[in-house]
Amino acid sequence: MFERDERKLSEGAAECPFCAGNESRTPPEVLSYRDGGAEPNRPGWQVRVVPDKHPILRIEGDVERSAAGMYDITRGVGAHEVLIETPEHGREFHELPDDRLESVFWAYRDRIVDLQKDERFRYVLVFKNKGFAAGATISHSHSQIIATPITPRTVRQELEGGRRYFNFNVRERCVWCDIAKEETAFAKRVVVQTGSVVAFCPYASRFPFETWVLPTMHSHDYTAAGKDVLHDLARAMKMVLARLETALNYPAYNFVLHTAPNLVPRPGYWTTIADDFHWHFEIIPRLTRVKGFEWGTGFYVNPTPPEMAAEVLRGTGA
Amino acid sequence: MFERDERKLSEGAAECPFCAGNESRTPPEVLSYRDGGAEPNRPGWQVRVVPDKHPILRIEGDVERSAAGMYDITRGVGAHEVLIETPEHGREFHELPDDRLESVFWAYRDRIVDLQKDERFRYVLVFKNKGFAAGATISHSHSQIIATPITPRTVRQELEGGRRYFNFNVRERCVWCDIAKEETAFAKRVVVQTGSVVAFCPYASRFPFETWVLPTMHSHDYTAAGKDVLHDLARAMKMVLARLETALNYPAYNFVLHTAPNLVPRPGYWTTIADDFHWHFEIIPRLTRVKGFEWGTGFYVNPTPPEMAAEVLRGTGA
Repeated sequence: MFERDERKLSEGAAECPFCAGNESRTPPEVLSYRDGGAEPNRPGWQVRVVPDKHPILRIEGDVERSAAGMYDITRGVGAHEVLIETPEHGREFHELPDDRLESVFWAYRDRIVDLQKDERFRYVLVFKNKGFAAGATISHSHSQIIATPITPRTVRQELEGGRRYFNFNVRERCVWCDIAKEETAFAKRVVVQTGSVVAFCPYASRFPFETWVLPTMHSHDYTAAGKDVLHDLARAMKMVLARLETALNYPAYNFVLHTAPNLVPRPGYWTTIADDFHWHFEIIPRLTRVKGFEWGTGFYVNPTPPEMAAEVLRGTGA
Repeated sequence: MFERDERKLSEGAAECPFCAGNESRTPPEVLSYRDGGAEPNRPGWQVRVVPDKHPILRIEGDVERSAAGMYDITRGVGAHEVLIETPEHGREFHELPDDRLESVFWAYRDRIVDLQKDERFRYVLVFKNKGFAAGATISHSHSQIIATPITPRTVRQELEGGRRYFNFNVRERCVWCDIAKEETAFAKRVVVQTGSVVAFCPYASRFPFETWVLPTMHSHDYTAAGKDVLHDLARAMKMVLARLETALNYPAYNFVLHTAPNLVPRPGYWTTIADDFHWHFEIIPRLTRVKGFEWGTGFYVNPTPPEMAAEVLRGTGA
């Protein structure tokens, strides 16, 4: 049905900066989970977080907002880190053993908690680019963590949308809680449920095989997730990604964590009243091209109904 | 600097449904500009508009809004047309003689005017996908016209943004008029000015070599543009696209017309008070990949500053 993404990412294991033994090829680590006694920046780690060598935002200095003629200008202050998910070259995210994959989700949490202590940062974005078409430049399995000095446009729109749904007609319900209940009951768009976490192809998906993964219990803040939820989350993500691989023949994909912004109360920050936002992951296989219609409208033409995508994914047996 | 997009679009001239002599391979035309006396759906046209053979929206029936569980559902009512810009296979948009290119811009106008008579349609989108990476499936030079029963998300956001700027601090000015003045005075981001139309790489461009083309005199409604403006517009678009071709070695690109929505006053329609919106074209060469960061934030990382892009384009001599 879909062509395999044949374009190869460049490096072999010997030169790979993310491989065990090549720790000196990255900046010094900011976090690692390692065997007892192993020294930092040496082999012996399972998960390792380092500053990006070519950061899109830089950690030093103040935000410094100013005018440039009629326009606004801000310094590119922030943090840009790489989370290396495994020391092994060629081992993919969904191929990690359950406990090691779980520790990747713990590392996301630890980095968000740490970065949110810096009050310059309004949002911490966790995401993964897998494969050339999804924007990856290094094939060794990794995610990225970017802290931004401005609430991202997409995050703000989602927070506003959640707030509007919550406030509509004294409803006072979380839209994602309602969606989780609706999808669980309807069942046809569900890809997998693992205890407290459900994965489904959303109603009116923008992209073929787009999948959302979220906890069925309300929670606005990923960093507050407990051990059970992260355990179920890791299993659900693993199963969805394994099924996408089987169904779509090794597709490029992105996933993005949507969670509450930095909750430090400061004037002008976009925030959540906790009841109106719900953290979740969005997975987008990169199968279609964004065209003039999508740029001009913000609407997406999706040739694969989510009910069909979910059925295909459930049927893979992966 | 950039690789040529080598992926070829499929058909040769003999089977091309858009070539002169192959008129029977498309649905009957809804508009054509032809030599005096030439019959419809026969050769002898310069510009020809036909319904799309695989429309994403269909012309028949009512919009019929209803609920699907907690979600909303609407029938895909609308119009989807193809504007064939030339009878000649392999002749590109910017290679058309001035008067023939000008007639393409008249044809956009005529189709918008006609489609806006249908009160089901809230917006008429005019756009072009050029090259595989931009979403084209047929290489013969053409644009698309899509009438939508809902105001597109992107259009609504732009209308709201224009309104907010207009209303800020009893300013009562159009943001695009202010931008046109700022850019003309600053000059470093200007690609070309042709009388009443200016083309520039916008401040904080989202994409390398992104270019906006707009009339310097205020006008919210493309269909109200006079002969002089459309003449200057055609020359500006031709020069920008010729310069992009020279500078970037035949890039894939999209362009999209941003104009006022259907101004038929109906409750619930997003509209403009005329003073707060300004029609323009946005041209986006498809040189970079949209990655997880862009999906997660709505922000764009652009490695080419607009001042540099404009300098390169001015220097092509095209």
